[in-house]
Amino acid sequence: MIIKYKHNPIIIPENINTVNDEVEVFGVFNPGATKYKNKIILLLRVALKPKAENGWIKVLIADKNNDYKLKILKWKKLKSLKVISNDVRFIDINDQRYLTSLSVFYLAQSDDGLNFSISEKPVFLPAKDYEIFGIEDPRITRIKDRYFITYTAVSENGFCSAVASTKDFISFDRLGIIFPPENKDVVLFPKKINKKFYALHRPTNSFIGKPSIWISESEDLIYWGNHQILLTPLNNKWERLKIGAGPEPKLTEKGWLVLYHSCGDKEIYTMNAILLDRNSPNRILGKSKQPVLIPQFNYEMKGVVPNVVFSNGWIELNEKLLIYYGSADKYVAVAEASIYSILKKISAIKN
Amino acid sequence: MIIKYKHNPIIIPENINTVNDEVEVFGVFNPGATKYKNKIILLLRVALKPKAENGWIKVLIADKNNDYKLKILKWKKLKSLKVISNDVRFIDINDQRYLTSLSVFYLAQSDDGLNFSISEKPVFLPAKDYEIFGIEDPRITRIKDRYFITYTAVSENGFCSAVASTKDFISFDRLGIIFPPENKDVVLFPKKINKKFYALHRPTNSFIGKPSIWISESEDLIYWGNHQILLTPLNNKWERLKIGAGPEPKLTEKGWLVLYHSCGDKEIYTMNAILLDRNSPNRILGKSKQPVLIPQFNYEMKGVVPNVVFSNGWIELNEKLLIYYGSADKYVAVAEASIYSILKKISAIKN
Repeated sequence: MIIKYKHNPIIIPENINTVNDEVEVFGVFNPGATKYKNKIILLLRVALKPKAENGWIKVLIADKNNDYKLKILKWKKLKSLKVISNDVRFIDINDQRYLTSLSVFYLAQSDDGLNFSISEKPVFLPAKDYEIFGIEDPRITRIKDRYFITYTAVSENGFCSAVASTKDFISFDRLGIIFPPENKDVVLFPKKINKKFYALHRPTNSFIGKPSIWISESEDLIYWGNHQILLTPLNNKWERLKIGAGPEPKLTEKGWLVLYHSCGDKEIYTMNAILLDRNSPNRILGKSKQPVLIPQFNYEMKGVVPNVVFSNGWIELNEKLLIYYGSADKYVAVAEASIYSILKKISAIKN
Repeated sequence: MIIKYKHNPIIIPENINTVNDEVEVFGVFNPGATKYKNKIILLLRVALKPKAENGWIKVLIADKNNDYKLKILKWKKLKSLKVISNDVRFIDINDQRYLTSLSVFYLAQSDDGLNFSISEKPVFLPAKDYEIFGIEDPRITRIKDRYFITYTAVSENGFCSAVASTKDFISFDRLGIIFPPENKDVVLFPKKINKKFYALHRPTNSFIGKPSIWISESEDLIYWGNHQILLTPLNNKWERLKIGAGPEPKLTEKGWLVLYHSCGDKEIYTMNAILLDRNSPNRILGKSKQPVLIPQFNYEMKGVVPNVVFSNGWIELNEKLLIYYGSADKYVAVAEASIYSILKKISAIKN
């Protein structure tokens, strides 16, 4: 059984201190998760948005000419201003595309995994040209004594996958872009397999093929190669549009357990599971026949983007998994499950 | 002065032996070029297409279930068949996208760089799952005693950049995919700079930003990282839509000379030049103000895709550059220039 916590959502925008009076918190969602010094840690994606002002269109970016400080760009709503906004996430102003919000990471800490105290300020902010439209959807993988944060970095030159490392969640070292645009949903395996590190990631095909999960290898986490396709979306109502990997893969007695999100008919996001071979993670052993997590409650169906459950962080506590997930691109929620209950949903597939 | 050869095009589809009676040569274009054993070598991209047959739609692919042998897929033109073909390069059949032609590489050899003898058969053919829709636009870079072929590999899972190496242009060793989808126009620098190999490549942004030239580094040509954006398209009539790197960068007394193609208004393709710092190839020193090669003759304006000049191979001979280029996605043409005459077209830019 996978049980959604009855007091969901556990974190909402009102719990977050905004960065200044001109900016509001639009959403807090898609947290990375790990354990650190007897605490459960979440890196919260917090989407910030300039406060609305009559007669103006405003966009928040990090200013590369001023030490990446957050900056509001504004345009007077004149007839001559060319504005297209068909998607809640994008806005095109005079043929330049911007995001409607800029995401940064706040830190949340908890003893029980349910009640969190949240940092007063963001702990990880845009600080590179490739991040000036924001940083999104962190995954945390502990490798030896360091925590590696993989995330989507967005700028006017596209979205791509980057990595940073930390020992304390206070200071972060960037290792740069590891997969060039358009790429997201990148997550590292927690240890070397056959002397290589592995990552799952999601190139965003537009011309041929659908956005699918790829697997790549590295010797040092900086340089990556031997890119192979791992899993393509099924042509069914849950997966038809795209899929992408979720939290850090977890080694179980059956192999690597991987959660992934899918987006299908009516753009409903669900979570699903696959099992990968312990020694050859590019080999799929099994796959869930039905989603393991589906939007069904109000906080999952209504928010910024409707009908979304999206997990990129989970931890193990008292022999249970706590699966953290963003709901409706607005809230943080959590579900509890045993590893066994998820493995049970997975059917063997031929390779 | 850049002088187009008066007997252009130098290679046309009729010069190519087809692979079998059911397949025709649709185009021969975009050759890679190098010097090998006192010969000038071209790797010709040859686009093959099933011969038309009344009442049928046919597509050529490499069959991954039969040793990648070429295979014609065919569909009877019934009312129930869902076919969309808005672009000469693609066709969508029952919601599956295919290419209208499959490309392979033939070898051409010459003493003077103008008159070529062409292999009877392809020398390099699809042989991996990621190549079953074809291999395209080879660039050749000699590094020590090996020749590295970078090329676009296409399959139902998208187009991406791959590399193979050869010592003899008879047998080729694949190093795998080096940049995942959607990526093309990849070319290697001919030597290490500050102990790193460098490549130029072209992620194909669709959501944010325009397809631009990126630069990445590697220690071994297999694993790549530290991806950085190098050059974005100008918002002018020549570059508005996209740009991508051309032949192997050439070290001159002023720095690395790089040709690149651009696609602008009316989808006209031209060739342009930039100059990169000798020791920091991610630093642009100068840029041509006007294209150095423009489609203007019949063989460049009419063919498979109109108004295209596209160079991905050049060689130096008797202190002149021979710039090979595909014209109208159908023919191979050549232009002659001194390095000096191209450098003269480049104006310094601030970095």
